[in-house]
Amino acid sequence: MVQKPLHGLKVLDLTRVLAGPYATMILADMGANVIKVEMPGRGDDSRAFGPFLPDGTSAYFASLNRGKKSITLNLKKEKAREIFLELVKTSDVLVENFRPGTMEKLGLGYEKLKEVNPRLIYAASSGFGQTGPYREKPAYDMIVQGMGGIMSITGEPGRPPVRVGVSIGDITAGLFTVIGILTALYQREETGVGQMVDVSMLDCQIAILENAIARYAVNREVPGPLGTRHPSITPFQAYPTQDGYVIVACGNDTLWEKFCRAIKKEELLADERFATNPLRTKNVEILEEILKPVFQEKTTAEWLVILENAGVPAGPINTVDKLFDHPQVLARDMLKEVITPAGDRLVAANNPIKLSYADTNLNPVVPALGEHTREVLESLGFGDKYDDLVAEGVI
Amino acid sequence: MVQKPLHGLKVLDLTRVLAGPYATMILADMGANVIKVEMPGRGDDSRAFGPFLPDGTSAYFASLNRGKKSITLNLKKEKAREIFLELVKTSDVLVENFRPGTMEKLGLGYEKLKEVNPRLIYAASSGFGQTGPYREKPAYDMIVQGMGGIMSITGEPGRPPVRVGVSIGDITAGLFTVIGILTALYQREETGVGQMVDVSMLDCQIAILENAIARYAVNREVPGPLGTRHPSITPFQAYPTQDGYVIVACGNDTLWEKFCRAIKKEELLADERFATNPLRTKNVEILEEILKPVFQEKTTAEWLVILENAGVPAGPINTVDKLFDHPQVLARDMLKEVITPAGDRLVAANNPIKLSYADTNLNPVVPALGEHTREVLESLGFGDKYDDLVAEGVI
Repeated sequence: MVQKPLHGLKVLDLTRVLAGPYATMILADMGANVIKVEMPGRGDDSRAFGPFLPDGTSAYFASLNRGKKSITLNLKKEKAREIFLELVKTSDVLVENFRPGTMEKLGLGYEKLKEVNPRLIYAASSGFGQTGPYREKPAYDMIVQGMGGIMSITGEPGRPPVRVGVSIGDITAGLFTVIGILTALYQREETGVGQMVDVSMLDCQIAILENAIARYAVNREVPGPLGTRHPSITPFQAYPTQDGYVIVACGNDTLWEKFCRAIKKEELLADERFATNPLRTKNVEILEEILKPVFQEKTTAEWLVILENAGVPAGPINTVDKLFDHPQVLARDMLKEVITPAGDRLVAANNPIKLSYADTNLNPVVPALGEHTREVLESLGFGDKYDDLVAEGVI
Repeated sequence: MVQKPLHGLKVLDLTRVLAGPYATMILADMGANVIKVEMPGRGDDSRAFGPFLPDGTSAYFASLNRGKKSITLNLKKEKAREIFLELVKTSDVLVENFRPGTMEKLGLGYEKLKEVNPRLIYAASSGFGQTGPYREKPAYDMIVQGMGGIMSITGEPGRPPVRVGVSIGDITAGLFTVIGILTALYQREETGVGQMVDVSMLDCQIAILENAIARYAVNREVPGPLGTRHPSITPFQAYPTQDGYVIVACGNDTLWEKFCRAIKKEELLADERFATNPLRTKNVEILEEILKPVFQEKTTAEWLVILENAGVPAGPINTVDKLFDHPQVLARDMLKEVITPAGDRLVAANNPIKLSYADTNLNPVVPALGEHTREVLESLGFGDKYDDLVAEGVI
């Protein structure tokens, strides 16, 4: 009963670096048979991103490409395209994150591929999408974070902008791409045909802007950065303690009451400036001046005990090392080893989707460049041409 | 041919506020028949979150719950649970984001519901997951952002921590929940039975930490915040200009060369401190001192033209208002109106997944609390009991 939920799903993977590989990583974790097509000799750009493991494998590449197969094909060569089209015939899904137009220039655009395989789901993840005036502009996560608004509401008021510390532009595009692929697979059960999935990093940034759009749409006030504060809930932020910070999240008036009693500031409950959440938000700076000296009296650990005992949502700001021995992270098996071709081991984030009747854990095997080329060629009947294809630079 | 890809999919939606409603919003945009079950008289907590439209509808609620149906059921009442179980019988998917144990206390846990409907996919999105020592702790986005590491790598070095300006803890959990549901639906085609999808906000934060985990796993250096900088690519950050900021993203040595020529600093190409990306990253502070005065010579708009003409990826830092007339956002139809029960209109982010043979645009109709209760009760054969059920506080 416990098997991989997407076992048997064939995915042809032309992706590089992050947004696309993140999408096919999730598909691979779920059991899809992902064949990663890489450029002979060089491979995915991220194979060159440090830091490296002792055997020379990029840690970045390893964590994103576990559980995939790697074949090499130089798609600029006619023979490589012939082999590629054979793979398309038997694939359910193709994923690429080239700049729009790249596949068409190779003669491998969706219009061509659907003639070869009408059931193919062709997913393209790009910076700005397959349409619109920006479609051919170069995009990196950083560009999209700046253009899409998230950087304008992240950081401290009056200070320089900051980037979200992870490549959220790439990662959300990867997640929406997976949703698009699985939705198209659902629809294919009914229609029998595939379709094109077009996901843009910029569009995805708009889609995650949450209440910033609603607030601007209603009151035309341009949202700015608020440090650790929430725009409309108070107190809901980090306070400096004797030795660090503690986050307090009072989402409603009941929690506000518990909070005031827990920190022994019951007098605030009678203060009409703080009687409701909208009032507390309006008077947030006055409240902060009152609370600051209170929090500096104890350590973060002491405050966490006090607030937890009072039933007030609170937490620390963990650095990444803290996650490696965090009891909940360990209990959920969220950090697992992946294994490089030479047997080096690296801790990576596991798949966060837990299914009751299916195995969704990452498959730890990281492929060497072209490790599966011979096997895949043999399955297509090109096995006897392997040496010639190497000599010609096709694989 | 062009229809909603998930049309016919029946989703029973018990979610509140953000992570769960974000997941069912995507399902509704894709055409699923989402029946949102709310508490009589009060409804989803987010109906009380400002700002409000003229008719009193919360803009926050409206943007997340467009295209869903709303029924009221007080699940603490026996008769409400009877009606609920009738709905479970005909549903494909149930989504809830209660604290673990809540549904069991109501006698509506997954073990019970799967007896009623073995094909049901039961998706639970929670702060810490259904297992582990933290399972019953209260969680808000802010707590999870702090605990999961992302806050420790977002912000300026040496300055206080900052929150990612959107509720990325909730939103990524919502996205992974959708992926879990669609994966379980895919597997159900083969097995004929449903299963439980268990997604934790904290797990999802680990899953998006990207190279921060790989870097720590390899070199045991704890990653910290870097302002707008990328940890391993240089130059890849925002520089202050005469009137704002410009983001520059030189992802490889070719772009570095184009960049130096574009800003008329060809001498940097001969400087061995900057000869490779690892060297530029090592000497990033020296490089920044050289580049700072250069960027202050011109405006952001001027730099964008110069860098674009040179083929160097670059971009502005847009505030949210800029998105409302951004040519690419408009071309991609990423901002669309939703319509409240009284006919008020509000701009919201559209679904970013574009499918070639299906309509994935948001359905703009926002439900009033309990607007569809009568219709749904009638479909279940309880229509004649409507007034009694209201009187008893069941609906």
